[in-house]
Amino acid sequence: MKKKENKNVAGLKIIPLGGLEQIGMNITAFEYEDSIIVVDCGLSFPADDMLGIDLVIPDVTYLKDNIDRVKGFVITHGHEDHIGALPYVLRDINVPIYATRLTMGIIENKLREHNLMKNTKRKQVKFGQSINLGQFRVEFIKTNHSIVDAAALAIYSPAGVVVHTGDFKVDYTPVFGDAIDLQRFAEIGKKGVLALMCDSTNAERPGFTPSEKTVGRTFDTLFEEHKNTRIFVATFASNVDRVQQIINTAYKFGRKVCVEGRSMVSIIETARNLGCIQIPDNTLIEIDQMKNYPNQQQVIITTGSQGESMAALSRMASGMHRKITIGAGDTVIFSSNPIPGNEKSVTKVINDLLIKGADVVFQDAHVSGHACQEEIKLLYTLIRPKYAIPVHGEYKHLKAQAKIAQSLGMAKENIFILSSGEVLEVSQESAKVIKKIPVGAILVDGLGVGDVGNVVLRDRQHLAEDGIMIVVMSLDRASGQLVAGPDIVSRGFVYVKESDELIEEARHTVDEALQHCLDRGITDWGKLKNTTKDTLSDYVWKKTKRRPMILPIIMEV
Amino acid sequence: MKKKENKNVAGLKIIPLGGLEQIGMNITAFEYEDSIIVVDCGLSFPADDMLGIDLVIPDVTYLKDNIDRVKGFVITHGHEDHIGALPYVLRDINVPIYATRLTMGIIENKLREHNLMKNTKRKQVKFGQSINLGQFRVEFIKTNHSIVDAAALAIYSPAGVVVHTGDFKVDYTPVFGDAIDLQRFAEIGKKGVLALMCDSTNAERPGFTPSEKTVGRTFDTLFEEHKNTRIFVATFASNVDRVQQIINTAYKFGRKVCVEGRSMVSIIETARNLGCIQIPDNTLIEIDQMKNYPNQQQVIITTGSQGESMAALSRMASGMHRKITIGAGDTVIFSSNPIPGNEKSVTKVINDLLIKGADVVFQDAHVSGHACQEEIKLLYTLIRPKYAIPVHGEYKHLKAQAKIAQSLGMAKENIFILSSGEVLEVSQESAKVIKKIPVGAILVDGLGVGDVGNVVLRDRQHLAEDGIMIVVMSLDRASGQLVAGPDIVSRGFVYVKESDELIEEARHTVDEALQHCLDRGITDWGKLKNTTKDTLSDYVWKKTKRRPMILPIIMEV
Repeated sequence: MKKKENKNVAGLKIIPLGGLEQIGMNITAFEYEDSIIVVDCGLSFPADDMLGIDLVIPDVTYLKDNIDRVKGFVITHGHEDHIGALPYVLRDINVPIYATRLTMGIIENKLREHNLMKNTKRKQVKFGQSINLGQFRVEFIKTNHSIVDAAALAIYSPAGVVVHTGDFKVDYTPVFGDAIDLQRFAEIGKKGVLALMCDSTNAERPGFTPSEKTVGRTFDTLFEEHKNTRIFVATFASNVDRVQQIINTAYKFGRKVCVEGRSMVSIIETARNLGCIQIPDNTLIEIDQMKNYPNQQQVIITTGSQGESMAALSRMASGMHRKITIGAGDTVIFSSNPIPGNEKSVTKVINDLLIKGADVVFQDAHVSGHACQEEIKLLYTLIRPKYAIPVHGEYKHLKAQAKIAQSLGMAKENIFILSSGEVLEVSQESAKVIKKIPVGAILVDGLGVGDVGNVVLRDRQHLAEDGIMIVVMSLDRASGQLVAGPDIVSRGFVYVKESDELIEEARHTVDEALQHCLDRGITDWGKLKNTTKDTLSDYVWKKTKRRPMILPIIMEV
Repeated sequence: MKKKENKNVAGLKIIPLGGLEQIGMNITAFEYEDSIIVVDCGLSFPADDMLGIDLVIPDVTYLKDNIDRVKGFVITHGHEDHIGALPYVLRDINVPIYATRLTMGIIENKLREHNLMKNTKRKQVKFGQSINLGQFRVEFIKTNHSIVDAAALAIYSPAGVVVHTGDFKVDYTPVFGDAIDLQRFAEIGKKGVLALMCDSTNAERPGFTPSEKTVGRTFDTLFEEHKNTRIFVATFASNVDRVQQIINTAYKFGRKVCVEGRSMVSIIETARNLGCIQIPDNTLIEIDQMKNYPNQQQVIITTGSQGESMAALSRMASGMHRKITIGAGDTVIFSSNPIPGNEKSVTKVINDLLIKGADVVFQDAHVSGHACQEEIKLLYTLIRPKYAIPVHGEYKHLKAQAKIAQSLGMAKENIFILSSGEVLEVSQESAKVIKKIPVGAILVDGLGVGDVGNVVLRDRQHLAEDGIMIVVMSLDRASGQLVAGPDIVSRGFVYVKESDELIEEARHTVDEALQHCLDRGITDWGKLKNTTKDTLSDYVWKKTKRRPMILPIIMEV
């Protein structure tokens, strides 16, 4: 007890605004009295039932309501699930962004696209450097991950220190830059850490994640084995170290390298400008120069390792690419694992490539960027936090990390699996969830942010399932009698040309029901529409066991 | 050369009508002069882009066109991808069905549902028994698989013998019945086999698939470890041996067993009636009796291991089941692996269960029903076929089996990776693809078989993506002038209440464009509709970057 004890010190509030119910949309607010800082601001990709949605961003109403206290965004690394919502959120929460070199480089690309550069304050931070944000001080600590310049954060507040790992792995032999700064974690841990927020992605996996360098050795072997073919390597656009290693091996084997895929070209250019990747002279060539080199002197690094149908690899596999077609005599190396949910589309691309006669290598040319169980144990043991708050994962991952923390001797009641919106107040004395604030997901569709909600999604699901039948009719304003229709138009229901009879009989059935209403003097539009819906719906169900959306439209003339 | 050589012997035609581009829809015709037999008649489940489709069946036009020569269906086992299309195909191809005991039991359940029992000839076949079908003789040979009574077929024709493995694994210690009849395969092989059609599902996996019995031992261990909780086991409805083993372990531990899920209840009843499963007295209880026993004396065997949202497990996990809710203190064992494409929905159920507080076991309680590489090598080595035709798998699986066959010394040109519709003519002298017949997939949606085609699917995809905008207007027959509208109604596009202005401005824009046409005397409906589409489409794209379906409807009054 060197420092004087302050019995009245307030608690630190930790408020995840997203990211705890899924992979993606990571954003956490830290609040101490008049100061709020926000760690990360990610997007998530739409769930399968979010038809037509492009991406999903967090609802930051809480930040808007407390805008005067928000001091800045502190970003751990440059992946979409940590930075992707920035261009949308900045419109309302225009505070400075703090990030390391490549992270800031990628953010700036985004800001430029959204025309937000001029109005956004940015500060590039070095590892070991601290920034002061109101009552907070935030230190950036070197980690390793599947993107260069990933950082953990030590967040100092009057209530104590919180360590947030960001996404990390322990790589003793990284491709670029230093290994994770384990000494600094130990030092901070020694002084006493209030809470650890640690990456849970691989918490179900035993052992250690191998070094990124092991992939480089695999490339050497594969290039040796496929000396006489053109080689394609598909990987994640943002994995600069992976691209570096492909280039290293290509150079070793005297091959020229062409990069395909818009996102990859953009990130490599940014990484190169920032000195995060070293490309020997005369190694990179443009797609149009490929014809000047024999196949066995070419390597094409490409996006599309997740089977995305519009990415370069899929287009080259299906013959839809304007310049390159993959075929017999080509070798395609997948330097990736399918992200859960993408298994089928990846398999489709593999089958397409094999059918075209290409050789496909789909093993051993990838390592994860996330810590497995032994690495998580290492971090806990260096940091020895009072409280643990597993982050970054689905519930099963968070739960798996909680089990690890318990296995290390942490008391169950000091481990918190939070839901987004829960406000955890922590201090040296106690930690508890004191309330829940409203949070949520906002859907982005084209230019529309939040204009597609549950009603529209439900309609899209209904339309997708069985299509739509539209019943139009014109009523005479004076007499209330039908002067045209009812006519039926359908889309996505049946192939009309072959179902003439069905549609005509449906029309007839609706017509009769409407006439019956009108004959009884019923002219209320609501009633006529309901009659149309019920009659047609019953008829169609009986005939087809389908339930298309039925939309009656009445015009008055 | 004991038999007299017949130089003019015709070739045997092998014609896969489905099943070679995907997992599912297995159906192969064998044709020799005036005789055609059909092996299996399966369905497949709709691909992700087949919105609203319930199931997919093969186009059997070729069989219809040759109906006089079709002698019968010979079925290898009772899985949907081998029998599921029978109720649809039998309507046109009403020939006898030959199958082993449980296979026939499951087929008869289907025929009963479709009211086809009376008009369908059926013959139950024993292992070792042969049936004569025109120029063919077909022998049923015992194999092992994840369903009881699976058979391989030796198909004898004047051109030679073809062995079709069906789906199989080598299980030396099966739960029910005999091990695969390796002696018979050897005997047939010794006499000379023209072609082997072998299951490719696990051809990418090295080693041997473990015996089904190993899962029983795992259940013993898991039940021992969870003595004090209620236990749920989720598995495939048709895996009778798996259910047998769960019941055995439950009985050993003094637990009562309740079976949940319609398809599982039905198959177990059939298996029980046929003597394919032994259930000790007083072990099976009804769901309503569960309340009479403490939790630690209950086991619930359930469907839903693939995360199907309407299956019993999902409903029990989400609190939607009318009688059982899974919560804290329950253990849920997944005795299954996710089928490719189901990973996300399985994970969702696991997360739901963990959030409810249940303990979830998701490892080691499953083995595959398909042969791995060493088993495939065993079969090839016993049978030593002249030609190899890998079946049952995506292209990458077929290719992997082809590699295995080559590794065993088969010449590349004697291995045929066929596409559906290719007619392979084989004889002792040669084998080659002589032509391609039209084949395809027919979509089943509700009661409709084939009434949803590409046009309808494209419309559903379009509707799913961005919804629909309907523009209605009434034209006066005499003057050709607008007397009502244009009005815009949308569904699945934007939440209209909050986008009033957008819709009103869109309406105004269309109105202006139409007036401009009408003022210039243009009254052609096609032109008016195109103007509406183009104007609205441009406007909406500019404002929202979306492309809803636009449907102009003109009424004449």
